[in-house]
Amino acid sequence: MKFFEDIAIGERAELGRQTFTAGDIKAFAGRFDPQLFHLDEAAAARSHFGALCASGWHTAAVWMRLMVEHQRREDAARRERNEPVAELGPSPGFRDLKWLKPVYVGDTVNYAMEIIEARPSNSRPGWGLITLRNTGVNQKGEPVISFVSVAFVERRRVAGKDRA
Amino acid sequence: MKFFEDIAIGERAELGRQTFTAGDIKAFAGRFDPQLFHLDEAAAARSHFGALCASGWHTAAVWMRLMVEHQRREDAARRERNEPVAELGPSPGFRDLKWLKPVYVGDTVNYAMEIIEARPSNSRPGWGLITLRNTGVNQKGEPVISFVSVAFVERRRVAGKDRA
Repeated sequence: MKFFEDIAIGERAELGRQTFTAGDIKAFAGRFDPQLFHLDEAAAARSHFGALCASGWHTAAVWMRLMVEHQRREDAARRERNEPVAELGPSPGFRDLKWLKPVYVGDTVNYAMEIIEARPSNSRPGWGLITLRNTGVNQKGEPVISFVSVAFVERRRVAGKDRA
Repeated sequence: MKFFEDIAIGERAELGRQTFTAGDIKAFAGRFDPQLFHLDEAAAARSHFGALCASGWHTAAVWMRLMVEHQRREDAARRERNEPVAELGPSPGFRDLKWLKPVYVGDTVNYAMEIIEARPSNSRPGWGLITLRNTGVNQKGEPVISFVSVAFVERRRVAGKDRA
């Protein structure tokens, strides 16, 4: 992770993409959202969705995976450049999650995030609080998910002795 | 599901409980949130969490499972009483999701929901829109997750011929 001071509002990153297979959709739904339109093609065809589609929680969980992998790649690149790596703290939560379109079998969702707010944390000295708008867009360019997340990010130490 | 007209604001239901095992936590994290404090006990002990704990998305996904199972039990009971069963439509999303405390290995989370708003849908005739406050509380009585979700619920047909 970048340090809080190096994060600019408006900064955007592509996090990666995932194609949702019938197997992935059914495996997630079997464990966490066992509604028939996420589990069975014929039942899904008769439902308001019209075809097998992913649980909304599955679409959201894939964002988390791609975000973790994106940060990991970025941190590896920083280490290669001998730059310090900031710690990403816990997330207090999310707001305004919208499932805008169903994600059907074979859909490829491109996930991205944009920094929309950044401020020093009042409750945790040494940390900043960043707010991200996260989106997933399918292969037709249709947004399928959007939400706003908040996370703590480490600040540079004021003494600064261990800065690169 | 009850019909929209039979749902009262303030109505509350216990959805069920889940004990989070190390195996469950690591299986979810391995697929969707591969951060070390969700995957490895020793690394988690050194992290800000202090011990292995569940991905927040895992805690949320378990709510979904328990909600589906709760509705299924309720619908089965309605059918036994020869009462009609309303359709639960898609959820447009949720808001204000807060992870209030980590969920550690062995924690048992009790999930509940409460109806906080109900109104006829403007965009979909024949449907109502209900707003739920959802919570998960651990075995010490500490809230670990809360969020507000919205869902479409079928209205009774105006002609009413097929009412029970």
